[in-house]
Amino acid sequence: MPGTVPGLFDMSIFPVVLDKLVEKFASLPGVGTKSAQRMAFFVLSLSDSEAADFASTIIEAKRGVKKCTVCQNLTDTEVCRICSGDRRNRSVICVVADPKDVIAMERSKEYNGLYHVLHGVISPINRVGPDDIAVRELISRLGGGEVSEVIMATNPDTEGEATAMYISRLIKPLGIKVTRIAYGIPVGSNLEFTDDATIFKALEGRREM
Amino acid sequence: MPGTVPGLFDMSIFPVVLDKLVEKFASLPGVGTKSAQRMAFFVLSLSDSEAADFASTIIEAKRGVKKCTVCQNLTDTEVCRICSGDRRNRSVICVVADPKDVIAMERSKEYNGLYHVLHGVISPINRVGPDDIAVRELISRLGGGEVSEVIMATNPDTEGEATAMYISRLIKPLGIKVTRIAYGIPVGSNLEFTDDATIFKALEGRREM
Repeated sequence: MPGTVPGLFDMSIFPVVLDKLVEKFASLPGVGTKSAQRMAFFVLSLSDSEAADFASTIIEAKRGVKKCTVCQNLTDTEVCRICSGDRRNRSVICVVADPKDVIAMERSKEYNGLYHVLHGVISPINRVGPDDIAVRELISRLGGGEVSEVIMATNPDTEGEATAMYISRLIKPLGIKVTRIAYGIPVGSNLEFTDDATIFKALEGRREM
Repeated sequence: MPGTVPGLFDMSIFPVVLDKLVEKFASLPGVGTKSAQRMAFFVLSLSDSEAADFASTIIEAKRGVKKCTVCQNLTDTEVCRICSGDRRNRSVICVVADPKDVIAMERSKEYNGLYHVLHGVISPINRVGPDDIAVRELISRLGGGEVSEVIMATNPDTEGEATAMYISRLIKPLGIKVTRIAYGIPVGSNLEFTDDATIFKALEGRREM
């Protein structure tokens, strides 16, 4: 309804549906009212077929994209292309918080195992517990004896750390190795501008040359 | 098609329709690939009905919003609410480049006349001539003898200035007063940080107290 976007469009000189379009764009992450307004005017400047294509893409993406029944990553098939591929090392599972993290891992071209996407991290402050993320689905994947290592690749922040810790305690009793991705100085960065905690972790994780 | 958004989604581990949704968002003004990706994931997190509502709002806005046959402002009726309202001073027309400028003018609550939206400014460098903006529609409004003043409120930049100049030369022979909004120091701002051209204009436009 007009009015939730304050100030700009509440003078009812513009069509209500334009107000509504601005609000839709303003509801997207990182989009303020002014940007939403520019986006709405841009959509009005599209041809009819371009606008229809934009709208139908939203519907199709929403309808077509689901979670892989194995790894919970986003897919348009029952089992995603990574889980169903035959060139992957099926004895390693890399656990990440978010589908975007899978993209980052794949980009490195270093990892050839499977993934498990938690879709979140444990966060008491946001009332997210272990049952709200895909922990149970991960544990159920480990029963077959095929998996020998689980790499915890949640973010190196408090919540990512706590989530990794929680999950590793569930997995260790199953006799499966659990590892954590290394902390350290990012490649190409500069010691001078590296924060203390990272330097501490980089020293702690030092390896013989 | 995947591939026009470089780098992030070109590994075909994600559904094609998700790539396509990211591209749609990335085509919006001011939206980069990373933001588009966040927006796409946000849309996937919506409920089915919320996503459907987003899509249908695009279609409805595109279908429902047209130009007022009188002032060319955006409207969902044949004649917009300002032109058809009976509380407006019909002897003054304020000429602006863009529908957003009408919002700005209305926000001031100072102006009670009519508007004319040019939908652009004359810009040889962008190959926009007088016939590409709503100049002819403006001139045809001035024949009835009802209008006594036209206020040129295009932006105070080169193109806005040239457009105002061009239109004023067309109108003056009709015996109608043409005025230009004042240049000067913005209210609440600071002389110290005001650019030279504005200070020059503010001095030039000084009025007796």
